[in-house]
Amino acid sequence: MSETLLSSRNLAFELYEVLDAEALTQRERFAEHSRETFDAALGTARSIAENLFAPHNRKNDENEPEYVNGEARLIPEVKPAVDAFLEAGFLNATRTFEQGGMQLPNLLSQACFAHFQSANIATSSYAMLTMGAANLIEAFGSEEQKQRFLQPMIEGRFFGTMALTEPHAGSSLADIRTRAEPAGDGTYRIKGNKIFISGGDHPLSENIVHMVLAKLPDAPPGVKGISLFIVPKFLVNDDGSLGQRNDVLLAGLFHKMGWRGTTSTALNFGDNGECVGYLVGKPHHGLAYMFQMMNEARIGVGMGAIMLGYAGYLYSLEYARERPQGRLPDGKDPTSKPVPIVQHADVRRMLLTQKAYVEGAFDLGLYAARLFDDTETLPTEDERKQAHELLDLLTPIVKSWPSEFCLKANELAIQILGGHGYTREYPVEQYYRDNRLNPIHEGTHGIQSLDLLGRKVAQNNGAGLKQLTRLIQDCCRRAAEHPSLDALRQPLEQLLARLSAVTLALLGDLMQGKVNQALANSALYLKVFGHAVIGWRWLEQAIRAEQGLAGGNPADADFYKGKLQAARYFLTWEVPSCHHELALLEARDPTCLEMQDAWF
Amino acid sequence: MSETLLSSRNLAFELYEVLDAEALTQRERFAEHSRETFDAALGTARSIAENLFAPHNRKNDENEPEYVNGEARLIPEVKPAVDAFLEAGFLNATRTFEQGGMQLPNLLSQACFAHFQSANIATSSYAMLTMGAANLIEAFGSEEQKQRFLQPMIEGRFFGTMALTEPHAGSSLADIRTRAEPAGDGTYRIKGNKIFISGGDHPLSENIVHMVLAKLPDAPPGVKGISLFIVPKFLVNDDGSLGQRNDVLLAGLFHKMGWRGTTSTALNFGDNGECVGYLVGKPHHGLAYMFQMMNEARIGVGMGAIMLGYAGYLYSLEYARERPQGRLPDGKDPTSKPVPIVQHADVRRMLLTQKAYVEGAFDLGLYAARLFDDTETLPTEDERKQAHELLDLLTPIVKSWPSEFCLKANELAIQILGGHGYTREYPVEQYYRDNRLNPIHEGTHGIQSLDLLGRKVAQNNGAGLKQLTRLIQDCCRRAAEHPSLDALRQPLEQLLARLSAVTLALLGDLMQGKVNQALANSALYLKVFGHAVIGWRWLEQAIRAEQGLAGGNPADADFYKGKLQAARYFLTWEVPSCHHELALLEARDPTCLEMQDAWF
Repeated sequence: MSETLLSSRNLAFELYEVLDAEALTQRERFAEHSRETFDAALGTARSIAENLFAPHNRKNDENEPEYVNGEARLIPEVKPAVDAFLEAGFLNATRTFEQGGMQLPNLLSQACFAHFQSANIATSSYAMLTMGAANLIEAFGSEEQKQRFLQPMIEGRFFGTMALTEPHAGSSLADIRTRAEPAGDGTYRIKGNKIFISGGDHPLSENIVHMVLAKLPDAPPGVKGISLFIVPKFLVNDDGSLGQRNDVLLAGLFHKMGWRGTTSTALNFGDNGECVGYLVGKPHHGLAYMFQMMNEARIGVGMGAIMLGYAGYLYSLEYARERPQGRLPDGKDPTSKPVPIVQHADVRRMLLTQKAYVEGAFDLGLYAARLFDDTETLPTEDERKQAHELLDLLTPIVKSWPSEFCLKANELAIQILGGHGYTREYPVEQYYRDNRLNPIHEGTHGIQSLDLLGRKVAQNNGAGLKQLTRLIQDCCRRAAEHPSLDALRQPLEQLLARLSAVTLALLGDLMQGKVNQALANSALYLKVFGHAVIGWRWLEQAIRAEQGLAGGNPADADFYKGKLQAARYFLTWEVPSCHHELALLEARDPTCLEMQDAWF
Repeated sequence: MSETLLSSRNLAFELYEVLDAEALTQRERFAEHSRETFDAALGTARSIAENLFAPHNRKNDENEPEYVNGEARLIPEVKPAVDAFLEAGFLNATRTFEQGGMQLPNLLSQACFAHFQSANIATSSYAMLTMGAANLIEAFGSEEQKQRFLQPMIEGRFFGTMALTEPHAGSSLADIRTRAEPAGDGTYRIKGNKIFISGGDHPLSENIVHMVLAKLPDAPPGVKGISLFIVPKFLVNDDGSLGQRNDVLLAGLFHKMGWRGTTSTALNFGDNGECVGYLVGKPHHGLAYMFQMMNEARIGVGMGAIMLGYAGYLYSLEYARERPQGRLPDGKDPTSKPVPIVQHADVRRMLLTQKAYVEGAFDLGLYAARLFDDTETLPTEDERKQAHELLDLLTPIVKSWPSEFCLKANELAIQILGGHGYTREYPVEQYYRDNRLNPIHEGTHGIQSLDLLGRKVAQNNGAGLKQLTRLIQDCCRRAAEHPSLDALRQPLEQLLARLSAVTLALLGDLMQGKVNQALANSALYLKVFGHAVIGWRWLEQAIRAEQGLAGGNPADADFYKGKLQAARYFLTWEVPSCHHELALLEARDPTCLEMQDAWF
């Protein structure tokens, strides 16, 4: 594979130098694995992504799914790609050998999947949605449901969706109107309309299993009255064969700015009163189930945003190295040869910014994936609980930070290509359009900021926050052993101190009931918190790069110097910018809160 | 017209309260005009924009021009719209009555044109390009050229283009390769390839007049060897009738991210050695001529960026007022009614940010347009020269600030609409895609930053900069008479003081020959300078709003309060953020400059 989708050197740096993936093989669950098996899986992913996913990425965009006779039609290249993905086992990469999986750590599964996201986010989505739906059934479904629906999903015969949003209820799931009436035989009749259901119809699988949020007749109001149902496109007979078509109608397709290869559907459930659904778990627990799976989905969204940013960065880097244009400010001799634009300081700025954003976020995404492994495979329950608390806290950052800043990276990639970047003859404008979805779906940016400040930082008496603070402080202590890193460490220490103080103050306001005021500027808080986290991850990378420079292969020196320069950029150009937002947070600045509708 | 494209209240505020357009009628050139004639022109523009431009804005996007048998084909709605625009006289709004124009101030012409840009940037572009080409011939062409080419352009029978960019030379025009050989009869034979030529072919006019940059055989190297030529699509006979087709070939169309309704063409000049061109003005002065017209073109680009931002702001505001979703943080009773999202603090933030960006930029754009009038109609030469110096200085800001921040506004508009904003069923994603061109064409963002710091601030011994500084200081003095504005004025004063100091320091570096270092962070300088200018324009608006509140119509109180709140937002949430960039500029931070190609 060309290195334009994901740098294999940087991936190895993350897995084996920063995150010590090999240490995972000492845990029982991963004992069969080694760096060799990890690399083999990565190599297979790279090869399929290169050969079957990347080639139709633009075609997916230019030929979006069509609504034909009540069904969604895709370009023919999608199915062979998805089939190869299934065949190679990536859908079940983390499942046990007994289940037919590869029993890989989540870290490795995410790293493999990153290749598909980078090569073709739209085609890779069908797999991601199916993984999410399957995991829901696996965690909360009955044995019979697992047999009937999960097993064919694991085998790649059934695909899945998550059906939450309705025309009048997106961010506010409390207000969904889809109903589920008991049919008397243990099943339910579902009635309602869902929109923006990704993968809601397609010809890639024998059946589609919709995970539908709906309300039972006796449901209490609000989020505590939402239940979760399995609603298959085709009913499934006891012997596993497909039965009749369920009363789920593809009402139409949405036409999007980007991410066009993934169907976004309007689905009508029960127009004829005959839509059969199966309750998952206990009544009224649906949203809680959904949220327990949310960490994984949100890491997935964050990784998608990162990989789109990454692909744009690498493409614009290659372009900047090859495109001659103009001369440096101090060399205006018009008879001299033009220089490659990578030599212009402002182009370097745009490349270095992209590198800092995408490689910083990539490190965090994989860190979160490894933390997910910790929640499942650390030896003691207490350690697993701690990992959970930290992951819960970091999840809104993992989801939202890349959605904002790797999108900015895409904007810079377009700018580097100039007029060419604005044309559809080059891939960078599509990366932007595809990535623009990420701050919206799986909880908007605003929702993430409320989740972070209104819920996560105070959760479990601040246990996750205390852990994170300790981790950052420990990182700063280790960085202090390298005097060359002083200028990088100090801005992070200053940010952390001020962020910790303002966090306590805001939590105090919340406890005193000043809820609207405390949460009014949550978007600022999200930015500062995210920059602190990414600043920490860059300082970790810088420490490792210092070690690599000191003791490593001289051939790697350029790589490590690049890491140090990107860390320097992030910690001195980005992190200190947060003091402005901190001042507004400290002052509880009411400018936006006090703005009145009538004044606009 | 609905108020979703341009607020007529805000337009009246700008023209008659902030910029005192009526005072222009005391100048001889505009003596026939009055507020009534101004408003009549604006009303006509609004009506044509609403009825003929807005309705096909989406269709333009979904059905981009097609290349058919060597010609560009457009959707049929474009021509009647452009014809109505011509018929109403907007192409020649600023020309004298004798020339068949309306003899309107440039301020009013830009305000009229803003309606078309807001309604349909792509269709309005054909007119803007023609105005630019016509003005070039008017300023530098011979009498015969004016008779043969300009007159039919004024009559709307010929359209125009600006043909600068070549495949290997965009930002660096010094390197163009298009050649012009004297034919012996006073004409020239042009040979070369141009790309990204907007409006390079279309069926809207009888003829297309390309203003082409090319090099004569004896041209000195670099920008001082570029000449300007008229190259018509069809030759024009002495009696004004069309002659034979010139050797200009439409080689193809570019397919863009947005702005799709405007043809972006590749043109081959002289494939058969028979492309006739006419030299404009003196040999080797082409780029200087082009640049003398650049102020106008760049104000036009800035206004386009503003109007796309404005349209997105108004659309998302209307949506936020009508879309119920969720409850406020302190009112979580799930049985209560959802509130319109305009009540959520974070949505207010996104709306107020948009308002601050687009109305701040709109004020600057119109201020620059009025300054353009001053360059032509102030009584003394000295006054006109001063206006020129200030306009020269402000031009990179008028072009680049809206291109960056009104684009950000469009991103926020999408976010407010959530999933709907991401679909092509709503207009906001197209506004973003259309606007994304603006930081690229007519001089990229990077080029603007070099133009500002490397040329404009030092020009004429800093005369423009001194004027601007005095104007801002004077504004602050007047603001100081309103104690309620203290919190808005002080951040601007602080910014101005620090910006002035760093400007002197950077100019010192330039004079000492530290050119690469001084210009390395020009992008940061551009941001800070732009924020100072927009901060000034907001403080002017705030002073006027205070006066309006004190003495005005009570029915206007909400309008003025909105102005004050947006000014507060900009001056306390945006302006102080610049101290971060100022610190980097003061330190001559070398992080980006020192980054090496091999380290990426």
